[in-house]
Amino acid sequence: MKSKLITVGDEILIGQVVNTNAAFIGEKMTAAGIPLKKTVVVGDSEKSLLEEFEDALKYFDVTIITGGLGPTSDDITKPALLKFFNDNLVMNWRILRHVKKIFQSRNLAMPSVNIGQAMLPSKSKAIWNPNGTAPGIWIERKNKIFVVLPGVPHEMKAMMADYVVPLLLKRFKREIKNVHKYKTLLTTGLGESTLYQKVIQVEKKLGASKLAYLPSPVGVRIRIDASGNNKSAAGHEILRIEKLIKEKIGDYIFGESDSTIEEVVAKIFTKGKKTLSIAESCTGGMLSSLIVSVAGASKFYLGGICAYSNREKMKLLQVKNSTLKKFGAVSRETAIEMADGIRKLMKTDFALSTTGVAGPTGGSRVKPVGLVWIGFSSARKTYAAEFKFGSNRQINIARASQRAIEILRRELLGIKIYF
Amino acid sequence: MKSKLITVGDEILIGQVVNTNAAFIGEKMTAAGIPLKKTVVVGDSEKSLLEEFEDALKYFDVTIITGGLGPTSDDITKPALLKFFNDNLVMNWRILRHVKKIFQSRNLAMPSVNIGQAMLPSKSKAIWNPNGTAPGIWIERKNKIFVVLPGVPHEMKAMMADYVVPLLLKRFKREIKNVHKYKTLLTTGLGESTLYQKVIQVEKKLGASKLAYLPSPVGVRIRIDASGNNKSAAGHEILRIEKLIKEKIGDYIFGESDSTIEEVVAKIFTKGKKTLSIAESCTGGMLSSLIVSVAGASKFYLGGICAYSNREKMKLLQVKNSTLKKFGAVSRETAIEMADGIRKLMKTDFALSTTGVAGPTGGSRVKPVGLVWIGFSSARKTYAAEFKFGSNRQINIARASQRAIEILRRELLGIKIYF
Repeated sequence: MKSKLITVGDEILIGQVVNTNAAFIGEKMTAAGIPLKKTVVVGDSEKSLLEEFEDALKYFDVTIITGGLGPTSDDITKPALLKFFNDNLVMNWRILRHVKKIFQSRNLAMPSVNIGQAMLPSKSKAIWNPNGTAPGIWIERKNKIFVVLPGVPHEMKAMMADYVVPLLLKRFKREIKNVHKYKTLLTTGLGESTLYQKVIQVEKKLGASKLAYLPSPVGVRIRIDASGNNKSAAGHEILRIEKLIKEKIGDYIFGESDSTIEEVVAKIFTKGKKTLSIAESCTGGMLSSLIVSVAGASKFYLGGICAYSNREKMKLLQVKNSTLKKFGAVSRETAIEMADGIRKLMKTDFALSTTGVAGPTGGSRVKPVGLVWIGFSSARKTYAAEFKFGSNRQINIARASQRAIEILRRELLGIKIYF
Repeated sequence: MKSKLITVGDEILIGQVVNTNAAFIGEKMTAAGIPLKKTVVVGDSEKSLLEEFEDALKYFDVTIITGGLGPTSDDITKPALLKFFNDNLVMNWRILRHVKKIFQSRNLAMPSVNIGQAMLPSKSKAIWNPNGTAPGIWIERKNKIFVVLPGVPHEMKAMMADYVVPLLLKRFKREIKNVHKYKTLLTTGLGESTLYQKVIQVEKKLGASKLAYLPSPVGVRIRIDASGNNKSAAGHEILRIEKLIKEKIGDYIFGESDSTIEEVVAKIFTKGKKTLSIAESCTGGMLSSLIVSVAGASKFYLGGICAYSNREKMKLLQVKNSTLKKFGAVSRETAIEMADGIRKLMKTDFALSTTGVAGPTGGSRVKPVGLVWIGFSSARKTYAAEFKFGSNRQINIARASQRAIEILRRELLGIKIYF
């Protein structure tokens, strides 16, 4: 079983829009066991589209077409489809009522041009579009399936996940030999190669499944790609591999899928009654803004101070002049006094602090660009940890903020701090 | 003149990687007057690739191929090329020295597999890759050009911009009828439709050029797409249109290309000796972190306080208890006292403040989610402006931060505040 994707639209060819739809559809079709073997983008030209239809009918079991379904004259997908399948349009009254309702709900009169959106090829079935006015189209010839979907990403995604994939799986139940399931584990605190070394034993026990390592400045996502004869077998395979990975690096995994470390920490906080404050220098407010980005942060986060100058570190955070003189602003001692200072000032249970050389200039031989101290303070203990990041200012700020939240996560969960 | 793009790689077909290269190449080729008319993605299969080469030779003047150029066995672009052009590999000694140097500079021994990267088809010319070990390949048949580039984005981009496009422009000087130039103007403070109304007169004077409106939560980018017989004519056309736009909405344009409003403001600050401090509530540190994201912010930014609780607003910023009681934390009066408070505390020339309901919950009938007050304070004047944003927490925080910096920009430049 194999599939082809045809994307229609000049805006993609000229580079105004990145074809993210292709990645989404590629992943869904691979997971369904009918992987994409070819993706084509053509402009708003009927001739090009008909050539691609011809190729699709010859070589592929399923062809997905996105875009060119709107109500305006440059939308050529439907006319091309009629020509190719030698068909004519008929009104789908159920779809027309749906389109009318959408305009009513927005308090708008429906332009007559939109009536045409409810007209579909007579040989086709409509695919329900809960989020928009253009229905999808399912049409067949010689057991080859063409599926036409709108190009608007959130409309296409819902239709693909809720209708197209389930229908294809049902239709080709016997032919599909191998379905995939994916799961992404989020790690932070280990570089890609160190992480790889730690899970290398797991790599040997994968069987037909695969691991992908997706690094970003603040961590590495591990994507498990497990396959099996059916969904349930693939699901069991995911669990088996996840367990193997967690045995090796469980402490470094803070979450899964699209969650963020600040969401994970916020969830831990809202379970208890503890409070947090933050004193920042080199991260300049980024650490505070990450904490606040989670809805409900006001329940545990009382506030922070960005003491960008030494004067403010002394005046507001009670960092001692002698400490700054003896050890400098970027030092273990200053980080500790900042964390203690903000915790006492705001009377919180926990406090974090950051001080470092974000760059790109301002470094010295002893304190190079990328050097950051992160402080932690609670009633029971206070310490600071040293990090050496790179030369990129934005990345250093992002990494220092992420590491500070990771320290907090480990303290909250009682996981060993590894530095 | 028309071109085709072939991207090689399973990782794109299965959706692990989004094909951003295609958008970049699409824009460059359109600008060069040899627009892409088709983009194809195929997996690591020699057969598929040969079919696409056949189609390319028949229908297109220029074909760009990216990916599959690495040193490992699944990199099939070079073998396919040899077969198609009936050619054999010869060593390019200059490239070999370059590859060796790259490994030396990283203190690594060159694996023997990398020697192959310096071997190119005998009928081809090498395209210099300053950033990596795989050279590009330029090979021709019957006046049809095939250009092969590595898939690594930053390598491909440099080679495309610095070698491929200039060579194509030179080669097809006579055939290319219409080159494009682009310029992006950055605006903030006006919604897309209001902005469109204001420049509608310009739309009528565009001639063959076009304007694209690219909205984001914090502003609208206007992209001028001007064309002409040659680069210089297109350049003059850009200037003509830019002038027309600036006559209409000059005050709302804060920069161009990829710059940010915080960079623009930082540049103004570093010209003088003025200083800044910030008091945040609803933006939670984001405003401060935007200011600090610009290198050299420490020259004018002394620091900020994120007073997320009323207690901290009173204790640290001297907001009066009576003000909070009478008007509430989200009010003109509180925003003004916060801005004044931080300015006096940190003894700066200017100060900004934010207080609002970021959402998604916590709103009321009188103070709904999305309501934000932004305060400004200087020795000469203090005021606060009211904004009504939407229901999305992250977007509200981003928009409030952007608007605060826009107020500062206008104050620094003496531009009228429009609210």
